[in-house]
Amino acid sequence: MALILYDLAGADPNRRFSPYCWRVRLGIEHKGLSVETIPWRFTDKQVIAFSGQGRVPVLVDSGTTVVGSWAIANHLEQRYPEHPSLFDGAGGKALARFVETWTDTVLMPAMMPLIITDLFAHLHENDRDYFRSSREQRLGMSLEQAGANRESRVDGFRRTLEPLRATFKMQPFLGGEEPNYGDYIAFGAFMWARSVSPFKILKNDDPISEWRGRVLQRFDVARNAPGYNG
Amino acid sequence: MALILYDLAGADPNRRFSPYCWRVRLGIEHKGLSVETIPWRFTDKQVIAFSGQGRVPVLVDSGTTVVGSWAIANHLEQRYPEHPSLFDGAGGKALARFVETWTDTVLMPAMMPLIITDLFAHLHENDRDYFRSSREQRLGMSLEQAGANRESRVDGFRRTLEPLRATFKMQPFLGGEEPNYGDYIAFGAFMWARSVSPFKILKNDDPISEWRGRVLQRFDVARNAPGYNG
Repeated sequence: MALILYDLAGADPNRRFSPYCWRVRLGIEHKGLSVETIPWRFTDKQVIAFSGQGRVPVLVDSGTTVVGSWAIANHLEQRYPEHPSLFDGAGGKALARFVETWTDTVLMPAMMPLIITDLFAHLHENDRDYFRSSREQRLGMSLEQAGANRESRVDGFRRTLEPLRATFKMQPFLGGEEPNYGDYIAFGAFMWARSVSPFKILKNDDPISEWRGRVLQRFDVARNAPGYNG
Repeated sequence: MALILYDLAGADPNRRFSPYCWRVRLGIEHKGLSVETIPWRFTDKQVIAFSGQGRVPVLVDSGTTVVGSWAIANHLEQRYPEHPSLFDGAGGKALARFVETWTDTVLMPAMMPLIITDLFAHLHENDRDYFRSSREQRLGMSLEQAGANRESRVDGFRRTLEPLRATFKMQPFLGGEEPNYGDYIAFGAFMWARSVSPFKILKNDDPISEWRGRVLQRFDVARNAPGYNG
């Protein structure tokens, strides 16, 4: 097995909820490569100490270690140029960075309050103290405060997604007629929610919901992963 | 002259303020093509009646009429494949749609209140009644109400731009090391502001301001256009 991916997991080792790991996981599928994934928890710092840092995704490709989703996507693209492209050209690679910054600074912060308490409930018991203290410090409030009143906040979340929705009114994927790495960046956030939360974040007739369904349909590894149908 | 572009103008026929026309104008420059631009006002409907509709940009390329910025960009890319690409591949073209939807649904609606009264002041007198009544109907309030309190709203506008800002912390242009059509989509909005408003919408040390300067530096037609240094 050439590729090994350290992949964030919950109490159930098959429940993989990191949006960044999902970007990479679907990128590997897109490339038609096989991978062994190793369930990893936040507190397993020593397990990935060889990578020189303490976060996943970490990819090991025949002895080469690559850290972080963007670096891994670029590694896959350069190392396997004969496999289907993740970016479909230099313009796609450059603009995927904008999809990434929008996902990281708008989509995921807006989604977080809707799923944070469900996410906590699925953590391995060894991770709970670490997760609670690190996130509560970052948020400046308790997880429960951050996740309060989600029913009244979901409409605002949905409005935040308007650029994504407007795109899917014009084309089936961010990548056009077929998904590319831009899709996997945004879709990773929806796998983050799907893997831990039964809360309904999208209406069924939302074009974003339909896009999510199209991506799920293409990737067994996502569709069959432990999760909910939010 | 092969290309003719009908380009929205103010009372001063050299003041071109349409963000959509600027997308096209810079796309034409990017392609290294020459163009004759014809100043057009909102009420000059009969002048572009040959296009079958009433809005600009309208491009006439050796007898072929193309309407709308996205269609024009695609026409240029297909008609002049030997000239520098606007998209740098199929992925760049597809993801430019996401830049477009973000610009149209987030960036420009947030920018509009900051510049709307200045824009009105630069309109040709024939356009003022049309502009006021059509925009006030759309907004559900007067232009002056829409543009009120901009000093207190500019911080919110700047926060809205975080995905753009975060991208420019990683690369000089949306297109990567060089600008592509994604840059011209977003930059068109800043030309909209620049052409009509002295209001300072960005701080000087904002990475977005620095990007705007880099694009201006490359395009004489933008840098030398009548406008302000907001």
